[in-house]
Amino acid sequence: MSRQTSPALNETHDPKLASWVASANVPDTDFPIQNLPFALFRRRGTGEAWRGGVAIGDRIVDLSALGSLADAWDDAWDDAARHAVALASRDSLNALMAAGPAAWSALRLALSRMLRSEAPARPECLVPQADAEYAVPATIGDYTDFYTSIHHATAVGKLFRPDNPLLPNYKWVPIGYHGRSSTIGVSGQAFHRPLGQTRAAGVEGAPSFGPAQRLDFELEVGIFIGTGNASGAPIAAADAERHVFGLCLLNDWSARDLQAWEYQPLGPFLSKNFATTISPWIVTLEALAPYRAAWQRDAADPQPLPYLDYPALRACGGFDIALEVSLQTASMQRDGMPPATLARSNFRHSYWSVAQLVAHHTVNGCALRPGDLLGSGTQSGPDEAEAGSLLELSAGGKQPVALPGGEARVFLADGDKVVLRGWTSRPGLPRIGFGEAAGTVLPAR
Amino acid sequence: MSRQTSPALNETHDPKLASWVASANVPDTDFPIQNLPFALFRRRGTGEAWRGGVAIGDRIVDLSALGSLADAWDDAWDDAARHAVALASRDSLNALMAAGPAAWSALRLALSRMLRSEAPARPECLVPQADAEYAVPATIGDYTDFYTSIHHATAVGKLFRPDNPLLPNYKWVPIGYHGRSSTIGVSGQAFHRPLGQTRAAGVEGAPSFGPAQRLDFELEVGIFIGTGNASGAPIAAADAERHVFGLCLLNDWSARDLQAWEYQPLGPFLSKNFATTISPWIVTLEALAPYRAAWQRDAADPQPLPYLDYPALRACGGFDIALEVSLQTASMQRDGMPPATLARSNFRHSYWSVAQLVAHHTVNGCALRPGDLLGSGTQSGPDEAEAGSLLELSAGGKQPVALPGGEARVFLADGDKVVLRGWTSRPGLPRIGFGEAAGTVLPAR
Repeated sequence: MSRQTSPALNETHDPKLASWVASANVPDTDFPIQNLPFALFRRRGTGEAWRGGVAIGDRIVDLSALGSLADAWDDAWDDAARHAVALASRDSLNALMAAGPAAWSALRLALSRMLRSEAPARPECLVPQADAEYAVPATIGDYTDFYTSIHHATAVGKLFRPDNPLLPNYKWVPIGYHGRSSTIGVSGQAFHRPLGQTRAAGVEGAPSFGPAQRLDFELEVGIFIGTGNASGAPIAAADAERHVFGLCLLNDWSARDLQAWEYQPLGPFLSKNFATTISPWIVTLEALAPYRAAWQRDAADPQPLPYLDYPALRACGGFDIALEVSLQTASMQRDGMPPATLARSNFRHSYWSVAQLVAHHTVNGCALRPGDLLGSGTQSGPDEAEAGSLLELSAGGKQPVALPGGEARVFLADGDKVVLRGWTSRPGLPRIGFGEAAGTVLPAR
Repeated sequence: MSRQTSPALNETHDPKLASWVASANVPDTDFPIQNLPFALFRRRGTGEAWRGGVAIGDRIVDLSALGSLADAWDDAWDDAARHAVALASRDSLNALMAAGPAAWSALRLALSRMLRSEAPARPECLVPQADAEYAVPATIGDYTDFYTSIHHATAVGKLFRPDNPLLPNYKWVPIGYHGRSSTIGVSGQAFHRPLGQTRAAGVEGAPSFGPAQRLDFELEVGIFIGTGNASGAPIAAADAERHVFGLCLLNDWSARDLQAWEYQPLGPFLSKNFATTISPWIVTLEALAPYRAAWQRDAADPQPLPYLDYPALRACGGFDIALEVSLQTASMQRDGMPPATLARSNFRHSYWSVAQLVAHHTVNGCALRPGDLLGSGTQSGPDEAEAGSLLELSAGGKQPVALPGGEARVFLADGDKVVLRGWTSRPGLPRIGFGEAAGTVLPAR
């Protein structure tokens, strides 16, 4: 990796840093002092105003409390950091997102210094995560879902088009479509099984109407846009990461039977827009800088068009983020059994980089706004076991997936709870985690 | 039309009503006292706050001025109407939209009484439309575009699939997809020709990259949602119109060459999301009540599934709204020539009713929010001349459309201005208009 193309590291990445918050120093925590992800939260049951918070161990730094504690300010808090705290104390993170990477970085540095072992402990700024509830962290003006796993696209394509699984545009165009922002919820979301029309392939006559029978999850990474762009002013690929606030986990719930009947010719609609679940925590790109991955193409694959190419792409365009999806059925919940892991994958397999998605999205002049959300698409890996959906794991609903306790699933049943997790680690570096994005299927109404 | 299924008429529909605003009594005005559509406006060049306004002749009733003029209130202004004025004085119409049909109706009745010839003139509440500028009237949380013209779907399908123009789901499913809210603008919008990837059918190898060559308009009706629904709580078709604030004009600009290359398998994306132009004026469903149309199906066509059926559907599920699209090239603008009419159509040809779109959109539990926008899809009629896009008018780019002055178009050229207009009329009733939705193509950057 050349110096020129490596992401810049700074003192906040130092693996030797520890915190006066003891739970942040436990090796398997998602939230060491090197992470410092953002969420929108309040103390559960209080009806307090939502405000920004930063995870540290099993606590949350309440940014609104920080702002009102004059004695918290010392030399570590420059004007940029103080301003960022004020922006993050509002009832959404949009203003902080709009402030740009210098503001995010200033706030991160000040928080890192405040939370270090050698700094005075300020427990009055902390709220236990166990006492918190979370909201969707930003007003999401537009939500776009991409399709960046070539392994997922090929596996799903095989089910629909055995002779021609991957469409001719796939290796040239970062395929995406607009999703629904009104039904995005944070971890803990529960939704009723959707009703809709279905008609099996080859059947003639009236479609059926009723609860979806082929309900599925999709294991994705979410990408929150920070600073946007004006209509007609594309974001160049080389600049694109400066417009990204951070990454989260995203479950793009999908009703496969509704999808198969409705999706031609304009794409998925009711099969997707009933619910989308994200993790409350957004991990910043700065926190992820030491965990970048090379971006690779098979030798036989085309190189990206110039507008999708940039100097840092091949050396470190990707992110080495392990992804995992687990399922806990209603009876497993009742019996106190933990969720069973269904699959593991990794975001490094993505065929398109985050910067390429942003550049592609705006190359036609489309405007992104602070708080806009992009989904990566289902992140299936090259191995069949690395499948990010039940559609793939059950081979199109034909091979039941065995669960502990003698249960099995081809698609989701009522009461099923699906949990996404994500984390990254490197030898000699701390583990950085995303928390979880959990959601539960309620019976159809 | 049975009494039971006719929309309720009231004193605001009386064709004998005239206004003390003389320009509202001219026969060909879009804005007689029976219309009273809403917009968000301010006096041009002043930097004033945006606020709600109601069109009357060539004037705008400034709702924020009304609220501050104590002597404007008389018995016509009940509490509901006064509250609605307060909601409409904000910097978007979302709060008024959320207030529901009783509030909209109370405000309409009070305005109708205030503006009648026999009421005292209150010119201090008026702003000339010539002095106004407009904004997108609501924060549009989500924008959905439908595909409700079977004539358009068939004509476009013929170009792509001559043997199988209409897909099997069309007559059962109100096909729709999510669009982009960040690039919706009001009449007067100008946008740069989008750049993007294209690859002609049958060509192998790398796609081309550059300005779209097949830029098109789409003549649509926009539907603004008033009161929304909670996630998981569908809106029944019979109740759906109570959730609709009103209708506007909508131009879904489309880059056909980008679309053809990108749209499989997830639908249109960059080919549509660079710009969408709506009229500033939203005509309420109450104003349109006397201009409803029967909703018809060919005898051979299936009847709608129960969730898409409701008592008033066949008698008056449609709207008799004439639609017109005109084009004024750069040289026509330079030479002072008016826009040339390219096509006329009518919203009554829509295969799906407005209420069916709302019921379908929410049947899976999807939430609509106040200010959400639905597009009808291109409203082509049964006659070839009633085509709502250049793609159809030029037979897929093969037959140039002649313009005055010796010009011709197969698709749009830089500098072209496209103007949509819409209106409705009935013998013995005044003409009710939508104003216009005009937009201009700027050269690619």
